[in-house]
Amino acid sequence: MPRSSTVPPPVTSVLEAAGTWLPRGMAAVEERLGELTAGHGTTLADDAGATLAAGGKRLRPLLVLLSAGPAGGDAAIRAATAVELVHMATLVHDDVIDGAPLRRGRPTVAARSGRERAVATGDLLFSRAFAELGSNGGERQVELLSSTAVALALGELAQRRDAYDTSISRERYLERCGLKTARLFECACLLGRAVDGAADEPELAGFGREIGLAFQLLDDVLDVTGPAERTGKARGTDLLDGTVTLPLIVARDRDPELEQLDLRGLDERTAESICDRIAATGAPETVREDARGRVARAKRRLAGAALSGEERELLSLVADGVVERYA
Amino acid sequence: MPRSSTVPPPVTSVLEAAGTWLPRGMAAVEERLGELTAGHGTTLADDAGATLAAGGKRLRPLLVLLSAGPAGGDAAIRAATAVELVHMATLVHDDVIDGAPLRRGRPTVAARSGRERAVATGDLLFSRAFAELGSNGGERQVELLSSTAVALALGELAQRRDAYDTSISRERYLERCGLKTARLFECACLLGRAVDGAADEPELAGFGREIGLAFQLLDDVLDVTGPAERTGKARGTDLLDGTVTLPLIVARDRDPELEQLDLRGLDERTAESICDRIAATGAPETVREDARGRVARAKRRLAGAALSGEERELLSLVADGVVERYA
Repeated sequence: MPRSSTVPPPVTSVLEAAGTWLPRGMAAVEERLGELTAGHGTTLADDAGATLAAGGKRLRPLLVLLSAGPAGGDAAIRAATAVELVHMATLVHDDVIDGAPLRRGRPTVAARSGRERAVATGDLLFSRAFAELGSNGGERQVELLSSTAVALALGELAQRRDAYDTSISRERYLERCGLKTARLFECACLLGRAVDGAADEPELAGFGREIGLAFQLLDDVLDVTGPAERTGKARGTDLLDGTVTLPLIVARDRDPELEQLDLRGLDERTAESICDRIAATGAPETVREDARGRVARAKRRLAGAALSGEERELLSLVADGVVERYA
Repeated sequence: MPRSSTVPPPVTSVLEAAGTWLPRGMAAVEERLGELTAGHGTTLADDAGATLAAGGKRLRPLLVLLSAGPAGGDAAIRAATAVELVHMATLVHDDVIDGAPLRRGRPTVAARSGRERAVATGDLLFSRAFAELGSNGGERQVELLSSTAVALALGELAQRRDAYDTSISRERYLERCGLKTARLFECACLLGRAVDGAADEPELAGFGREIGLAFQLLDDVLDVTGPAERTGKARGTDLLDGTVTLPLIVARDRDPELEQLDLRGLDERTAESICDRIAATGAPETVREDARGRVARAKRRLAGAALSGEERELLSLVADGVVERYA
């Protein structure tokens, strides 16, 4: 299980560079996530526990803690936990929607315990997120998380609407990624500020959005290029699910026959061979370059934000980490 | 569509007895629900709009407004809207889980648009609920709704865990109904008080729980007795879904062969004939009596609550309405 270590690469460098407050905070988030998913009887403990144990990069809680800074305290821990719970809930539900068998190299809750239990488990994680954040008592915090959760659901609906459409525009793809991914990164950054009542910091919000988009772009590249033993899922999973992503959109403009593809009823082998064909156009490298450009823009936005030198440096490391996966 | 009128029987008598503030408040909730489900593009408008148009009794928002009283204002409208949105979200997700074809005589979102879209639509309604409530800014309000949403999901998981088990105890059944139904009624009553910062009123909470249980008991009776043209779904829907309810539990103790039934792979005709057999034991009337007893207890609890005479009278009418459906 190559992706199940608790502290994956992009996070490690940040934790090493930060003061003890950050590793301590991340450990507290991890502990809290464990408590919350263990505390509801065996069903949830099994399913959510498996989701939790599968690890993941914990980038979103990291952004909350970094944006809150060393003085964030328990309120920042709760906000970080809430953001990760929403993320986990959407993963569990996305896997129901996509019918995905594997996530991070392990069976999804939907595959393990049935779609029925996965729907309820996702709902539970979602509710728990608001329960956790609600105890912070900040109106702005609840507003941020709930409007972001609305965006996540709209993003999922947009993905369904656009499924199998090999002619979708780059703009439409980016809009969907904005809803599905970038908003939660932005929310993480803004929540970190909101826990001590600070006003929204537009530059930090922009930073979050850009690295969220970069993260999604790279995820979509990795779905095409693999390697499967690092990503924890087979190449071409998006294609099998009818999800048209930027590597295919870019490749399609270079190899127009790709637009004629019928993605319905693909088998895994054909999906892998389409991945090879996409890769042959050089599209993955183009998209990776786009992601790097976004990371650079994100870092420039940090320059204009009201942050300490340490905060700026650590957030920059996170931004770098986002595109340095399996480069 | 016999159940789709906007103001169904149990609510009518209350609206007639109340001052103009209550019908006006309920109309405002309806309008707000319409705005929120229409405001997210066509996909949601279609699916959530269909859920909304299918009506329902709107008992939960009614309880919020009644508990808040005439001075509840916009905050009470928002809380009432949030409670109904959570209820709608759970209906949409329950129908995914149960694979139910009809709800209130109309196709479910899962049946209309696929399970995939139904999962995302439920998530959207759910997120919208917290967005709506969050703008009230009360910590206690978010705590109430989120802990209730946790209970709802646990209730759904309990229902899955106990599915097809014809030997479950009455206590386990009641515990599940407590999570699945009674908690949201209780939450509605407490939210109504919380909107103007009043402390929790334990007698009112108890009132909400008892009528919630009575409501669920009667629902379970109606699943056995129909008539289908009033309930909007075929008799025996619970049995087809493997859900063992109190009428079967009571009947089983009188006709032990019922415990030997294998509910897996039932067809609709067999499910209806099991309903007849349950009815032959007199179990539905026993359960209906139980529900009436709970309504009586609920009304006694009102006597001890800090309420105006009008509030007490109107809440009593709601309690009566809960068991007067198709009596």
